[in-house]
Amino acid sequence: MTSKLPQHVTLVGAGALGRGWIRVFARHGVQVTVYDQVPAQIDQTLAWLAQDLAADVEAGFVTAAARAGMLEATRGEPDLTRALAGADYVQESAPEQLDLKRALFAQLDRLAPAETILASSTSALDISEIAQRLPGERRCVMAHPFNPPHLLPAVEMLGAAGTDPAILDKACDILGACGQIPVRMTRYVKGFLGNRIQAVVVREAMHLLESGVADATAIDAVIRDALALRWATIGNFGANHTNAESGIAQYFGRYAQTFAAMLEDLDTTAPKFDPAQLTEVGAAVEAREAVSGVQELIRKRDVMLTELRQLRRRH
Amino acid sequence: MTSKLPQHVTLVGAGALGRGWIRVFARHGVQVTVYDQVPAQIDQTLAWLAQDLAADVEAGFVTAAARAGMLEATRGEPDLTRALAGADYVQESAPEQLDLKRALFAQLDRLAPAETILASSTSALDISEIAQRLPGERRCVMAHPFNPPHLLPAVEMLGAAGTDPAILDKACDILGACGQIPVRMTRYVKGFLGNRIQAVVVREAMHLLESGVADATAIDAVIRDALALRWATIGNFGANHTNAESGIAQYFGRYAQTFAAMLEDLDTTAPKFDPAQLTEVGAAVEAREAVSGVQELIRKRDVMLTELRQLRRRH
Repeated sequence: MTSKLPQHVTLVGAGALGRGWIRVFARHGVQVTVYDQVPAQIDQTLAWLAQDLAADVEAGFVTAAARAGMLEATRGEPDLTRALAGADYVQESAPEQLDLKRALFAQLDRLAPAETILASSTSALDISEIAQRLPGERRCVMAHPFNPPHLLPAVEMLGAAGTDPAILDKACDILGACGQIPVRMTRYVKGFLGNRIQAVVVREAMHLLESGVADATAIDAVIRDALALRWATIGNFGANHTNAESGIAQYFGRYAQTFAAMLEDLDTTAPKFDPAQLTEVGAAVEAREAVSGVQELIRKRDVMLTELRQLRRRH
Repeated sequence: MTSKLPQHVTLVGAGALGRGWIRVFARHGVQVTVYDQVPAQIDQTLAWLAQDLAADVEAGFVTAAARAGMLEATRGEPDLTRALAGADYVQESAPEQLDLKRALFAQLDRLAPAETILASSTSALDISEIAQRLPGERRCVMAHPFNPPHLLPAVEMLGAAGTDPAILDKACDILGACGQIPVRMTRYVKGFLGNRIQAVVVREAMHLLESGVADATAIDAVIRDALALRWATIGNFGANHTNAESGIAQYFGRYAQTFAAMLEDLDTTAPKFDPAQLTEVGAAVEAREAVSGVQELIRKRDVMLTELRQLRRRH
């Protein structure tokens, strides 16, 4: 795998996703250049990196030497041309606006070395529309991570209409060599795979809450302390496969009818999302997790995700 | 909490759920009596228990002494009257047929000591219908676990129309003292909380598969290697709360429209559940998890769940 590691990656866009991407690459010894059109954002992100790694050293997740190595490997560069020089792979994480991403990809295609792969972190747009009619359309791919990218390995992958399949393979290999799990789609659909699945969970959870069947803590407990544990070990289809002695085909052979009847009972309209109720939910989440504010909750999540990742690695 | 531990629990129904329930109680030193109307099923379950605990001793999850203690605490009893004598709490896990459960609860109510709590593991039926018009309706509750109960702590709880609220509280306390997480519902809905949420995930995963957007391994990777990891740490509402600087109300304030638009793109009809395709999915699951057959997959799942549980306990 090591041979598939890139030497130099450039991150375009230094927001929340860009931050995680730094750690994905830097922890494998890759040189990382961070560009953002707002230079102050670059400085903020590098400051965040130093701080987040310091917390991880304190927690025993990262050695002080590894932290120093990652900080050493990462540099900010406010000039895009200079930022792209020598990059094997570019990961773009700019705001989700088609016009903006099209203009940005045109610029990246013009300025980056001819063989550099151009990957977009887009969570919503179609890479075929982003890369349409670019001279370098063949080197453009979608690589959509989950937040935070350095702790959640899955990355949804899709080429544009004109992407060279060998380039898409290479992008998958690069991310795989950096410890991510590239997940291939065959075509664009709204929300890709993950946001669609997340949306149906949000919808049903909100309907259960809004109709008063249970409170937010109860609904989350069923997810956090039962369903998600099973899904996190063997996935959804894996869980289905354990539900009958002969597996998934037997299971749905028996229960497809029951299943269809239950689906008919579900409300498929959009939830109300009442701000006052959501404010209460947020307070209940913080109380239950014994944190004060979103930042503490994020840190708690990341600590647990790091430990989950270590546990996974032992298997 | 220790004071809330029951001294003696009787399990009625020695199938897959009953097996897990033995471990829930026996690991806390509770005396467990196992009844099944098919006596051979009792023997099989006790044999399974000895075997499963031996595997856990070998894996280092359970000490040999703890295993011996659990086996010592558990006995089979093919006579229902004798099985119920002295029980503080009865957990019924019989097949999901209303007539059967009603008849069984009538029998339990007649035979069990007056203060014994009668809990049903039903995953589908309304406890109000099961307990309707029983002299001891006040002591009947639903306590629906997830499979396997000893590794997934959440238990959905609901009283019947005539249940004494103090009895429901006591049932929650007993399960909580045994390391489970009682999750209260306010009323019956088809599928309760967990099976509804699971159903929407199955539906969307199946539609993505059936429409060819991605294969089963890709869809499962997004769940196993991203979404479920986040849910397993902070739940669904917890994850939503991390999505904007000021939390969940701000997040849905911004994205409710985008969200509604994506929901409209989802297919809410029942999946086809084609047996040939499902057979391929089962094979793909086994290949990906490097197991041969459903039993090996279950063991792999349980090993990972045990480690997850240990990790959780450290927090």
